[in-house]
Amino acid sequence: MQAEILATGDEIRTGALVDSNSASIAELLEQNGIEVTRHLAVGDDLSMLVAVLKEIGARADAAVVTGGLGPTQDDLSAEAAAQAAGVSLVADARALEEIEAFFRKRGRPMSDSNRKQAFFPQGARCLYNALGTAPGFQMRIDRCTFFFLPGVPHEMRAMLHEQVLPALHALQGTAPQFRLTRVVSTFGLPESIVGERVAAIAGLYPDIKLGLRAKFPEIQVKLYLNSADAAQGEARLAEAVQWARERLTPNVFSVNERSMAAEVGELLRQRSATLAVAESCTGGLIANWLTNTPGSSDYFLLSAVVYANDSKVKVLGVSEETLARKGAVDEETARQMAEGARRAAGATYGLATTGIAGPGGGSAEKPVGTICSALAGPQETISRRLTLSFGQRQMNKQMFAMLALDLLRRYLTGVLKPA
Amino acid sequence: MQAEILATGDEIRTGALVDSNSASIAELLEQNGIEVTRHLAVGDDLSMLVAVLKEIGARADAAVVTGGLGPTQDDLSAEAAAQAAGVSLVADARALEEIEAFFRKRGRPMSDSNRKQAFFPQGARCLYNALGTAPGFQMRIDRCTFFFLPGVPHEMRAMLHEQVLPALHALQGTAPQFRLTRVVSTFGLPESIVGERVAAIAGLYPDIKLGLRAKFPEIQVKLYLNSADAAQGEARLAEAVQWARERLTPNVFSVNERSMAAEVGELLRQRSATLAVAESCTGGLIANWLTNTPGSSDYFLLSAVVYANDSKVKVLGVSEETLARKGAVDEETARQMAEGARRAAGATYGLATTGIAGPGGGSAEKPVGTICSALAGPQETISRRLTLSFGQRQMNKQMFAMLALDLLRRYLTGVLKPA
Repeated sequence: MQAEILATGDEIRTGALVDSNSASIAELLEQNGIEVTRHLAVGDDLSMLVAVLKEIGARADAAVVTGGLGPTQDDLSAEAAAQAAGVSLVADARALEEIEAFFRKRGRPMSDSNRKQAFFPQGARCLYNALGTAPGFQMRIDRCTFFFLPGVPHEMRAMLHEQVLPALHALQGTAPQFRLTRVVSTFGLPESIVGERVAAIAGLYPDIKLGLRAKFPEIQVKLYLNSADAAQGEARLAEAVQWARERLTPNVFSVNERSMAAEVGELLRQRSATLAVAESCTGGLIANWLTNTPGSSDYFLLSAVVYANDSKVKVLGVSEETLARKGAVDEETARQMAEGARRAAGATYGLATTGIAGPGGGSAEKPVGTICSALAGPQETISRRLTLSFGQRQMNKQMFAMLALDLLRRYLTGVLKPA
Repeated sequence: MQAEILATGDEIRTGALVDSNSASIAELLEQNGIEVTRHLAVGDDLSMLVAVLKEIGARADAAVVTGGLGPTQDDLSAEAAAQAAGVSLVADARALEEIEAFFRKRGRPMSDSNRKQAFFPQGARCLYNALGTAPGFQMRIDRCTFFFLPGVPHEMRAMLHEQVLPALHALQGTAPQFRLTRVVSTFGLPESIVGERVAAIAGLYPDIKLGLRAKFPEIQVKLYLNSADAAQGEARLAEAVQWARERLTPNVFSVNERSMAAEVGELLRQRSATLAVAESCTGGLIANWLTNTPGSSDYFLLSAVVYANDSKVKVLGVSEETLARKGAVDEETARQMAEGARRAAGATYGLATTGIAGPGGGSAEKPVGTICSALAGPQETISRRLTLSFGQRQMNKQMFAMLALDLLRRYLTGVLKPA
């Protein structure tokens, strides 16, 4: 079964909004053995929408369309679908009831424009939306079965899982082919080197497809396999993952799509260790990444985001003399920050960053991209100084945060031996 | 001139990677008066690529293609373009030289696979890449001028601005139509209410196009205008922005695409005030947002990300008795955190969050989504308690961080009067 994905809306067409829906739809379809052949996006233009729906209708077996179901006048999906199929719009009683109930429950007034959302092309099957006010619908145009979903990501995803996927499996009729994926996440090697190290996989595992993905600041190696038997396929993939991992060690930090922060958290949890962070140039990004993992309060105690020198002194006990003599961006300062954070929180480890994220603040001696990181533990404090610049403040922050977390990961896994 | 955008790569087709390039290309083209009619994405499949290039070649005036220029075997753009145009591939001497120089400069070995990146379709104009190893190229297929760019976002963007845009202006020949955009950013109203409040704009300003964009947790009102005269258009748009702002006050926090954090930063800067933050449930996100703005060190002194109760006591001086009696998620605790952060950093204002981001940790009395925020200033400390749940940890963190920053924004602008 070949599927296409259509995102609609002027916000997407004009680039005001990055379309992340199409990627999450594609990922789910592919995982369920449905080949995605094309993504398309067009604006809120009725004749363009009708034309594209007809094109897809003549070409694909299935299509998922997002957007254009809202209450405003530029929401045109139902009308376009009706025109493409040559039918009229009719109200769906249950959809109208559910929209009314949604507003009642929240004690919010229902507007007339919300009522429009209960009108669908004749013959369409309504797809109810438990999380929002915009129901979707399923209908056939030409040879293709279309699923129209709202553009709000979490509403779209819930409907995709609960309503679209079962309908697609029913359409497929056959036992689903399992599309299996594994991700080997690396940090610290350029993409071309990663690619060369694993290139031989094509000969060793001809049934497995390889994809490299630069997800700054990581490079991911993705392995894909289509298999009629999920367990057998998983075993085969695990073998290839192990092979790739050996070629890329010690730069591999996870083989299960876990982020660097979640992986470091897991390493801390396994060791019943705790962490305190002192962040200058990373500005809270390390803490934000760590706390995106549920349960991180088990090991993450504190991050002191000490942007001002005065805060470095008061909160972390960094020596004023060191700051005066060496400056804020210095390995010795980083060491004192790491030790101060560890002490302030009573944590097993203290991790610190201080550097220059730019665009301003650089000098000949300490250019933008200079990053000092330090790790204080029960036995010792280690520190590193590097200069790496990516020309963008947020990229530099991300790289700095990854470098610091990787320092801790390598230390905890014994890859980084004490000097 | 009508343009299309094509993203290539199995990572995008299968949803492993969210395509943000197409949005940034669309935005730039639209701003320069070039209408973007379609976005497309297909995988690393030679025959599909050739077919889609031919389709676009027959339909559009210009097209920007991203991806498929890298060193690996699934990088097929040059070959597909050659086949679509019916020409062969030839090496570009300068491109080869530049790739060699790139590796020399970084002291990294150049691989054979990198050499392949210097081969282009006969007749193509090479677009050099100062930031990476993948040069792009410009060529005609059928009636359309294509620009092939690398998929790495910052390389792509640099080439788009420096090479593609001037070429497009030359192709257009006429004085460019200015596509003007303004964004009114709101927080705290549902999308349907925002839409209704500004719906009358269609009658008042028929030349201006309206788009609503839910950029969680904000709702943006975007106003678009095509104009031959940039200054005249800007004045007209400014008038409409002012009208929309009045309908949406006090929920409008910026009219210049400034983020809430940048806007709060600007308000602090104007008042020569400084800020210290104490974050529990937001886990560093407020600090991360604040420090994404260059120069934020002028007003942002400290964020204490106090995940552990012990850190709340030691770093911020929160009373152990309050924590024992009321718990970590409590307005009184939030007040002490805000006052503690303000005191620890010697800041004008202290801002604190403590809440339950989920998925665990909720109770009947304090369910997931409970957020207490507090603001301590020279005159007083104020606090708020709300319950809002979005079913996802990261969405809850974002909402909590916005609520806290909005509390400070309203206080600084006088919208929030002391109780």
